[in-house]
Amino acid sequence: MTKAEGGKRIDLSATDRIAVVAGSGRLPVNVADCLADAGHAPFIVLIDGETDPGTSLWGYEGKALAIEQFASLVQLLRRERITHLVLAGGISRRPVWRAIRPSVPLFRILPRALAGLARGDDGLLRTLVSLIEDNGIKVVGAHQVVPDLLATEGRIGAHAPQDGDWADLRAGLEAARAIGALDIGQAAVAIGGRAIALEGIEGTDLLLERVRDLRTNGRIAGRKRGVLVKCAKPGQEMRADLPTIGPATVDAAHAAGLAGIGVEAGRSFVLDVGDVVERADRLGLFVVGVTGERGNT
Amino acid sequence: MTKAEGGKRIDLSATDRIAVVAGSGRLPVNVADCLADAGHAPFIVLIDGETDPGTSLWGYEGKALAIEQFASLVQLLRRERITHLVLAGGISRRPVWRAIRPSVPLFRILPRALAGLARGDDGLLRTLVSLIEDNGIKVVGAHQVVPDLLATEGRIGAHAPQDGDWADLRAGLEAARAIGALDIGQAAVAIGGRAIALEGIEGTDLLLERVRDLRTNGRIAGRKRGVLVKCAKPGQEMRADLPTIGPATVDAAHAAGLAGIGVEAGRSFVLDVGDVVERADRLGLFVVGVTGERGNT
Repeated sequence: MTKAEGGKRIDLSATDRIAVVAGSGRLPVNVADCLADAGHAPFIVLIDGETDPGTSLWGYEGKALAIEQFASLVQLLRRERITHLVLAGGISRRPVWRAIRPSVPLFRILPRALAGLARGDDGLLRTLVSLIEDNGIKVVGAHQVVPDLLATEGRIGAHAPQDGDWADLRAGLEAARAIGALDIGQAAVAIGGRAIALEGIEGTDLLLERVRDLRTNGRIAGRKRGVLVKCAKPGQEMRADLPTIGPATVDAAHAAGLAGIGVEAGRSFVLDVGDVVERADRLGLFVVGVTGERGNT
Repeated sequence: MTKAEGGKRIDLSATDRIAVVAGSGRLPVNVADCLADAGHAPFIVLIDGETDPGTSLWGYEGKALAIEQFASLVQLLRRERITHLVLAGGISRRPVWRAIRPSVPLFRILPRALAGLARGDDGLLRTLVSLIEDNGIKVVGAHQVVPDLLATEGRIGAHAPQDGDWADLRAGLEAARAIGALDIGQAAVAIGGRAIALEGIEGTDLLLERVRDLRTNGRIAGRKRGVLVKCAKPGQEMRADLPTIGPATVDAAHAAGLAGIGVEAGRSFVLDVGDVVERADRLGLFVVGVTGERGNT
């Protein structure tokens, strides 16, 4: 599948028609709006119970699908003459198997779907992707069609890291890479030149909540500054799970008493970048795109 | 300083006299009782506000010292004709500098103490250790004088890992080693063959509390079994911070819904091993000493 090194930018032509399978969170909203701004208003596959309500996603051409109707996704995309598909956002709910109705599309993909299922959720997703691609539709990474969402190198916003923050950025990046290599998490918090908290399955929100608690209950009370670092894992599958930060990350980092955020340039998304910059500037946090083995900009 | 590979067993002779600086927790209690059982009843340096009250430590010959009196430790040890010293247990409080009274011992060590202090808490500790050793007293690791406290290879207690638990033990060990190499933590929790939570500065208790919460709030609800793995970091300073488990670890692992605990054989302490076995057997948890690059027993 497309690796970090592979996923080159794709220039959509006037005849291309792109669809976005919109899971939860701000990524699908950012992807759709960016595509529309570039003159490629997307077709949105809204997933029941996953796509966030009340966003611009509901204003585009599209169709709502229950997660149990995954077998009919290929038919839908063919009917709409889709040429490129982006999978964006989280899908947290698993199909309720007894809610799946027998159908021709289902029976057609069943053998492969079952084989994929035996390999876990990830296996099912990969099976779906290969089914879609067998029908001549390219499954592409969000970064390939809306590269503007990727973190750029260097300062993002008004504030820059202080000299002393670079030790934290390096320690955080080193730790985030190490746990990424083991496919455990994408984020680390470093304070005083040392990684002190690592992201597991709990996610970045709970990681930052933990750091906030550690600030108040004494373990790291009195220690100033510190950073959150997020980076992609080595060999990251760029079509899913690319690290993201957004305005809520800035708020949570601030609540955790951190001085700033480092994100891997070119391999992480900064969502709602206008709001990110506005909040970071107002709260006095830096946001910086880092790269290279040593976390230099 | 003594590395994991170095710290060989020391056979105390009848003329040797050993002292234990007793910080918090069960380790100093286990060390003192083991030494007494072997016929080397220790002299205990009780640290105000750190040594746990109501333990057997208070029944040995000894003297209470405030953390601010660290400068007089060398004099005390010389007066008691101590030949070997073990530092055991946690020291969480830092000296209150205005509570330190000027004294001859203090002025004698001040230049080196200040230099050590400039390198942080760890630097101060190392300075103290070298001061003590300059006075002909050997600072030794607990494992060197009471090797019986070390985890042994294989099953500890009645229950053994099931076949499927070995993938968790390997994943947990791999993750704990990776974060140990970066000097971040010593423990990891793995479920379903994947590390899902990593220990940072918060410690093992809060790590297990987090896993318990993740079981109940849905992130890993429905996933059975799983293990806690603790191991020493590569190049571990064996005279401090060797990983430990005890009865409370068994209780917390059980509360987190885990099937068992893996500890690095020969480089971790199992404290109050009788209670550990009794609780693990009763709760149905396995405790196993693991070793080798692949976590095989």
